[in-house]
Amino acid sequence: MIRDLTDDEARAALPLKWEAAGVVPAWVAEMDFAQAEPITEALVDAVRRGALGYPPHSEELGATFAGFARRHWGWDVPADASVATGGVVGGMRLALEVLCPPGPVVVPVPCYPPFRDVVEVSGREIVPIELDPDADDASLDLAAVSRAFAGGARTLLLCNPHNPLGYVPRREELAALAALAHEYDARVVADEIHGPLVLPPLDPAGPTFTPYLSVDERGIAVTSASKAFNMPATHGAQLVVLDPADRARLDVVPIPAQNTWSSLGVIASVVAWRDCDDWLAALVDRLASQRSLLAELLDARLPGARTRPLEATYLAWIDLRKYGVDDPAGAALAHGVRLAPGQDYQPGLAGHVRLNLATSPERLERIVGGLAAALAQ
Amino acid sequence: MIRDLTDDEARAALPLKWEAAGVVPAWVAEMDFAQAEPITEALVDAVRRGALGYPPHSEELGATFAGFARRHWGWDVPADASVATGGVVGGMRLALEVLCPPGPVVVPVPCYPPFRDVVEVSGREIVPIELDPDADDASLDLAAVSRAFAGGARTLLLCNPHNPLGYVPRREELAALAALAHEYDARVVADEIHGPLVLPPLDPAGPTFTPYLSVDERGIAVTSASKAFNMPATHGAQLVVLDPADRARLDVVPIPAQNTWSSLGVIASVVAWRDCDDWLAALVDRLASQRSLLAELLDARLPGARTRPLEATYLAWIDLRKYGVDDPAGAALAHGVRLAPGQDYQPGLAGHVRLNLATSPERLERIVGGLAAALAQ
Repeated sequence: MIRDLTDDEARAALPLKWEAAGVVPAWVAEMDFAQAEPITEALVDAVRRGALGYPPHSEELGATFAGFARRHWGWDVPADASVATGGVVGGMRLALEVLCPPGPVVVPVPCYPPFRDVVEVSGREIVPIELDPDADDASLDLAAVSRAFAGGARTLLLCNPHNPLGYVPRREELAALAALAHEYDARVVADEIHGPLVLPPLDPAGPTFTPYLSVDERGIAVTSASKAFNMPATHGAQLVVLDPADRARLDVVPIPAQNTWSSLGVIASVVAWRDCDDWLAALVDRLASQRSLLAELLDARLPGARTRPLEATYLAWIDLRKYGVDDPAGAALAHGVRLAPGQDYQPGLAGHVRLNLATSPERLERIVGGLAAALAQ
Repeated sequence: MIRDLTDDEARAALPLKWEAAGVVPAWVAEMDFAQAEPITEALVDAVRRGALGYPPHSEELGATFAGFARRHWGWDVPADASVATGGVVGGMRLALEVLCPPGPVVVPVPCYPPFRDVVEVSGREIVPIELDPDADDASLDLAAVSRAFAGGARTLLLCNPHNPLGYVPRREELAALAALAHEYDARVVADEIHGPLVLPPLDPAGPTFTPYLSVDERGIAVTSASKAFNMPATHGAQLVVLDPADRARLDVVPIPAQNTWSSLGVIASVVAWRDCDDWLAALVDRLASQRSLLAELLDARLPGARTRPLEATYLAWIDLRKYGVDDPAGAALAHGVRLAPGQDYQPGLAGHVRLNLATSPERLERIVGGLAAALAQ
């Protein structure tokens, strides 16, 4: 059910990821797989019927998302809780500027780089909370969050599940965060775009996805079907907020400040949330196999690599400090493999990479092989 | 070559425009015509090959636009002058915030409402220059522009050709504006999305389109194929700037402040600029027939209506003050016709509407008929 794109197909489909000739790409978060057939058919049908105009007012996006949340996470989110937006990053900017109180913004680090940019663009001060690279797990430093709130911060940007750490925050951890947010009247903006990509637990006590709003009714979730279903070009995403007053504030944002969404994004998202469970199950299985293969390859080729369990996403965070190379991604590029440099996610952190494993087993072997060759020099 | 959508097809294709059941829509700027076949085929092909990822770095958008500009307007714009963006309104925000000097912003009024919003969103003061509704033509009040620049304004938002006035600014008028801008070191941001939609002149001395940058090398044009080719959902537009330093400033805008564009928008725009001249010629012919029909219908049904020549766009600005109804669009809605209220474009202006004539002759008759019935009461 998951169809691998050939190199030629991948180059034609994903020209940004594959732009450098002769390089196996494992950097930007796109998958080298064909999208789900119902999405293809819905978009082809939309194009053929001329559905290229402005997006309508529609309840379908929120209603189908609610169905997905109920089936996959046992979460009853109201159908009218979703507000359409064009993408998750622009949606976070809207959340910050329209819904969050003034004051500094807590950003756990490492983080997807636009998390830092969005705080700066919104004219707020950033309060980073750095994960100790030697920490056993990637859970949030709640004591540091408490200190940041006590010091005046009033917003926290949560990545749930976490990119680039591949970590799934636990329900009790999120509940403790919610309690802190309530204590300080702070708001948490949760990027949940990787929510559908929690992988099968590696042990029976492994985590499942906890939607942040299920523990904090004042939370703001920003999500999209575009990551799990590999279709960022469709420009469909959603803010999820439970308070109608918040939605009313979003509804009156003037057009130039909106993060404009597309009719095609709504059409594709509705189909993804509603009709693609089988494809998603097959995808998650496939990603779990890739995770196993990556573990084997690292054991064999890079035994000094250190990873925490990859609980979610297709992005592995790999600590290569033992090899004594400050910028392993830069070194790997000279060996025909493009990885995302760790220092992009945690400025000043040496020896880490983010590796995108959503590709064919053969390509994953070439990726780890190129990285190993680079570090062997 | 121009295929009219049936009511059912139009409702399925353009659900925002057609959202109210039983209402003939003539408000939002979408056309009730099927898009050009090369665009359909390119988008279907893109979807089938999985081109739903992030947009690549591409020279094609600027190169094909340059070809279009040369063929249609005799304008030699460099292929590398275009910077991709997601839409014209968001592009104007970027132009203002990234490229324009601080200080108040001149906005000729009436204007497309987001022109006012973008100034406010960008935290600037607005200096409106109102067109006298009794003026014979819709040319810019250059004396007022000069006073505004002398008073401290350093940016002007130009709509070329003008929405909602349907006016094509003359080359000498634009050259005079450019001279004023140079005198005061001000910048002009020109929305040129209607550039391809200049209609055949009604008399031999009628105007042709003058790209603003052809008279002012410091001008900033924001344009898109999405209006003339009826495809706003594809999220493709472009800023056109001649100075590489300006492009460098746009290139480093962080993701959360970008007006993100789509791969599909680039694909569709490239085809529109390159492969659709025949379709566009047929469209312009068809819009010219609709313009003639509208004139006949107004003569017959609303002889008190006053219009200036519709030189460009498919949006007619109609002065109905003689009928003594403050909000003719509101009155028409009760008669099953939705027009855009004039006061949305010029706050405080009574008795005007903007009428979208890009539909079938039969629907245009119903639109004018509904408006006439509303004003006859």
